[in-house]
Amino acid sequence: MPKPRTDGALPLVLALDPDARLPLHARIGDALRAAILARRIARGARLPASRVLAEDLGCARGTVLAALEQLAAEGYLTAQAGSGTRVAATLPDDVFAPPGLPSADPIPAPSVLSRRGMALTAPPRRVDRAAPTDPDAFALGRPALDGFPFAVFARLLQAEWRHGAPPSHPLGDPRLRRATAAYLSATRGVACEADDVIVTAGIRQSLRLMAQLLLDPGEAALVEDPGFPGIALALAEAGIRPVPVPVGPGGLAVGRALARVPDARLAVVTPAHHYPLGHAMSLENRLALLAWAEGTGAWIVEDDYGGEYRYAGRPLAPLRALDRGGRVIYAGSFSKVLLPALQLSYLVLPRGLAGAVRRALVAAGPASSGLGQGALARFIDEGHLGRRLRRTRTLYAERQAALVAAARAHAAGLLEVEAQEGGMHLVARPGPAWPAGLDDVAAARACAEAGIATVALSAYHADPGAAAPGLLLGYAAVPERAIAPAVLRMAEVLRAASART
Amino acid sequence: MPKPRTDGALPLVLALDPDARLPLHARIGDALRAAILARRIARGARLPASRVLAEDLGCARGTVLAALEQLAAEGYLTAQAGSGTRVAATLPDDVFAPPGLPSADPIPAPSVLSRRGMALTAPPRRVDRAAPTDPDAFALGRPALDGFPFAVFARLLQAEWRHGAPPSHPLGDPRLRRATAAYLSATRGVACEADDVIVTAGIRQSLRLMAQLLLDPGEAALVEDPGFPGIALALAEAGIRPVPVPVGPGGLAVGRALARVPDARLAVVTPAHHYPLGHAMSLENRLALLAWAEGTGAWIVEDDYGGEYRYAGRPLAPLRALDRGGRVIYAGSFSKVLLPALQLSYLVLPRGLAGAVRRALVAAGPASSGLGQGALARFIDEGHLGRRLRRTRTLYAERQAALVAAARAHAAGLLEVEAQEGGMHLVARPGPAWPAGLDDVAAARACAEAGIATVALSAYHADPGAAAPGLLLGYAAVPERAIAPAVLRMAEVLRAASART
Repeated sequence: MPKPRTDGALPLVLALDPDARLPLHARIGDALRAAILARRIARGARLPASRVLAEDLGCARGTVLAALEQLAAEGYLTAQAGSGTRVAATLPDDVFAPPGLPSADPIPAPSVLSRRGMALTAPPRRVDRAAPTDPDAFALGRPALDGFPFAVFARLLQAEWRHGAPPSHPLGDPRLRRATAAYLSATRGVACEADDVIVTAGIRQSLRLMAQLLLDPGEAALVEDPGFPGIALALAEAGIRPVPVPVGPGGLAVGRALARVPDARLAVVTPAHHYPLGHAMSLENRLALLAWAEGTGAWIVEDDYGGEYRYAGRPLAPLRALDRGGRVIYAGSFSKVLLPALQLSYLVLPRGLAGAVRRALVAAGPASSGLGQGALARFIDEGHLGRRLRRTRTLYAERQAALVAAARAHAAGLLEVEAQEGGMHLVARPGPAWPAGLDDVAAARACAEAGIATVALSAYHADPGAAAPGLLLGYAAVPERAIAPAVLRMAEVLRAASART
Repeated sequence: MPKPRTDGALPLVLALDPDARLPLHARIGDALRAAILARRIARGARLPASRVLAEDLGCARGTVLAALEQLAAEGYLTAQAGSGTRVAATLPDDVFAPPGLPSADPIPAPSVLSRRGMALTAPPRRVDRAAPTDPDAFALGRPALDGFPFAVFARLLQAEWRHGAPPSHPLGDPRLRRATAAYLSATRGVACEADDVIVTAGIRQSLRLMAQLLLDPGEAALVEDPGFPGIALALAEAGIRPVPVPVGPGGLAVGRALARVPDARLAVVTPAHHYPLGHAMSLENRLALLAWAEGTGAWIVEDDYGGEYRYAGRPLAPLRALDRGGRVIYAGSFSKVLLPALQLSYLVLPRGLAGAVRRALVAAGPASSGLGQGALARFIDEGHLGRRLRRTRTLYAERQAALVAAARAHAAGLLEVEAQEGGMHLVARPGPAWPAGLDDVAAARACAEAGIATVALSAYHADPGAAAPGLLLGYAAVPERAIAPAVLRMAEVLRAASART
C-alpha cells in the first residue's frame, strides 16, 4: 500500500517494458514518454515529485532523476525551480497517437511498397530459392563443395586480417584484380590487365552498375528468352526496360531482335553456353551482334556464366576476343566456380570505358566487400583456383554422365535428357510417357514436395504459357551415388502426378 | 630459310601474342583469327597445309591442328576432304575491322556514359577520397584503429570458415541480425528484434534499397542541407529527386520543407547528431516530421550515423522510439564504430514493412556479403564490440578535447572550433584572422597540399556559393600527440594562403 501523497500529484501508473536488457532509467523514461504522447498525462501537468515516483516504482530516486533528465533533454518535460517538473506545453498536438496503438501494428504488406517496389518484389518467374549449400538433387547454380579447401581459405583469411584491416578499394583489391586478369588470360582467352578488371558483388550488381552508367532510365536492353530471371530484374532495378528476344540453336537471333527493338542500347547474352538451354552462340550471330553494337554505339554484356566448364568440344573464343570497337563488357563470377558465399564477381571493361567506370565507382563507393578479396587473391595466386577448376571439371563431367545414364535407365520415355558440352545443369524434356496435361510448373512443384528441387523451364521464359516445357536439373553439387536414386524418385513422382492433374 | 613450299599457299606471317601464359595453340588460333578478321587472309582462301604452318611457326603439327580445329569450331575455317582448310566464305562483311585498329583504342571517356551515368560519376561536391585507414589528420569518417583486436577478428573469421562456407542469407546472417538487435536495444534505445533487422553493405546501399522499394522514379525525397553528399547520390541512383532542405540549430526545418515540397515521399535525416554540423534535431521538429510521415504515408530514414559517440549531455531517444505509425526506418553501420573494411550496415524496419522488404530481398538476392557476418556476430556476442565502443568513446573524447585546445592555442582568431557533444569530427569556422578573400575550398586545397586532409563545409551544401565557410576536421583516427602539430601546420598553411588568393 503506497503511503499517502503529500505533493498533490495524481498517482501515475507506468507500464515498464519488461525487457531487462534496457537499463531501468531508460525503461522509466520510455514509459513516461509513452504516457505523455498518449495524453495519459496532460500537457503542462505537474509530475509527482521524484521521491514519490521512486516509491511508486520501487526504485532509487537517482534512477527516476536520470529518467526525468532524459525527458527534459528531449523537450518533454520542463523543470522550474519551486514548481517541480511539468510536462511541456509546446508539443505539437497533431502527432499524439490514441492510446493503445502499438508502433508495431502490422500494415498490410503489399500496400506499403511503391509500384516499382512491388514489381521488384514479386519474382517475375518462379525460381528455386532453397539454401544454396544444400546438396539436394537437383537445385540449380550450386557448385560442388566436395573437397573444397576450406582450411586453406580460412588460413588465408586469418593471415589477411591478423595484423590489420585491408584498405578499402572502390574498384576491388588490386591483388584480386591482378589475379583475375591473369586467370582470365590463361584459362578463358580473355586478354586483359588488372586495370580493366573491377570486382563486384555478383552478376546482378554488375548489370545494375553497367545499366546505370551506360543507359538512361526507360531505355531498352535485349535479354535472352528463355534466360536467367535475375538479369531482367537487375535491369528493371536500374530503370531499364528488358526486352526478351527468342533464343534459337545459334543463340540470340540478332536480326530478329534488332528489327523488333531498333533502339536497344544494351544486349545481355550468354554466348559460350546459353543459360539455361546450353547452346553456343553462332559466329554469325556473334558478328552481327558486334556489328550492331559498333554501328549504333550500343553495349554488350557477355555473361560468361559457367564458361569454365566444358567437357566436350572446344570452348569458343569469348565475344570479347572479337570485339574491335570496345563495346563488349565481359562478366564472370567466382561464386559459381568456387563458393556462392564469396559473393565476388568481376567485370572486364573495354579500355575506353575503364576510366569512366573507375570515376563512377570512386564517387559511389566500393561495389563489393573487401573483406575476403585479399584472401581470394592469395588463393588464386597459390594455385588453389586452378586445382579446384581441374577437380570440379572432372567431377561435373562424371556427374553429368551419371545423370544422363540414370535418366535413360530409370526415366526412359518420361524424361528426355541430352548430354551437353558444358554447364552445371541439364534440360529434361517431357518424353512420350510424360503424363498428358501435366505442365512443367506442376511437375516441378510435385518434385519439390517429394524433396527433389528442380525448376520448370517455362519459368525462364517471358511467356511461360507459350514455352516448350522442361525441367532444369542441376547436377554439379550432387554426389554421383545420389543421382540415380534421385532420378528414380523423380520418375515415380512424375508418373504419379498424372493422377492429380 | 624456310624450305620451298610445295602446296602453293602463300606464306603466312602470324604475329603471336608474346604472353606465354596462353598455350601456344591458343596464341596461334588468336593470331589466325585476327588475320582473318583484318582481311589479311581473304574469305574463302585456302590455308597452307598444317605441316607447312608448323614449319613456319617452328612448332609441332599437333599444335597447329589444335589451333585450326578451334577456328573451325568457331566457324572461321572450313575443312573439306581433298581441298584442305579454307577461310569460311560466310562471315558477315560489315564487322571486318580495318587492319591495325586495336580493340583497346582509348575512347574519350566522358562521352561513353549515359546522362545518368555522368551525373552519378561527377562527384556532386568535393569530398576527401584518401584511403580510409590512413591515420593522417584530419580526414573524415575514419574510426581509430588503435588497439583494435585484429587477431581476435582474424581468429573468428578462421573459425567461421575452417569447416565450410556460411550459407547465404538474403536478409543477412541470422546470428548477426540477432546480435545487432540486442546491441541496438541495449545501447541505442532501439527496441527491436532480429526479424526487424536486415544487413546491408553500407548506408548508401541501405538508402538505394529503401528508395527503390518505397518510392517510384521521379518522386522527391527531403535531404538535409548541408548534408552528406553520398545520400543525395544514393537517392539519385534510385531515380529519386533529392530536395535539399536547410538545417538550423533544431535540425531540418520541417515546416519550411513541407511548404516547399508538399509531395515528398521520404525524408533522410540525422536527428541524433546532424551530419556535418552536429546539432540535435529538436523534439518539435521530430514530432512534426513524424506527423507529416503519418499523415501523408511518407517514410523517414533515420541515419543514426555516429550516434554511439556522445561525450557530454545525454543521447536523445531515436526518432524510432517516437514512431507510432511505423514510418521510421532506422539506419546504422558497423563500418564507423568498428572498421570501414567490414562494409556492413543495417536497417531496422518498422514491423509493417519487414515482410515486404524480406520478400524483395529474397527476390533480389543478398544486400551484403555473408563472408564476415558470422565472425562479426561472434565478435559482438563475445563482448568485443561493447569493449571497443567504451574504449573509443574515451579515446575520441580525449582527441576532441585535444583538438579544441590545440585550435585555441595555435590557431586563435584563425580557426574557431567549438566542442561538440558527439561525433567524430569538429567544424572549424574562419575567425577574424582568416585571410580576407580565402574561401574554404581553396583553404582545404592548400591544407591538402601540405598533407593535412580536411573538407570544406561549403562542399556539403547544395549551393556552395551561399554557404557559410568552414573546415571539417575528423579527429577520431588521429593520435593525440599528432593533433597539436597538425593544427600548427594548418595554421601556417592558412596564414600563407592569403598571399596566393
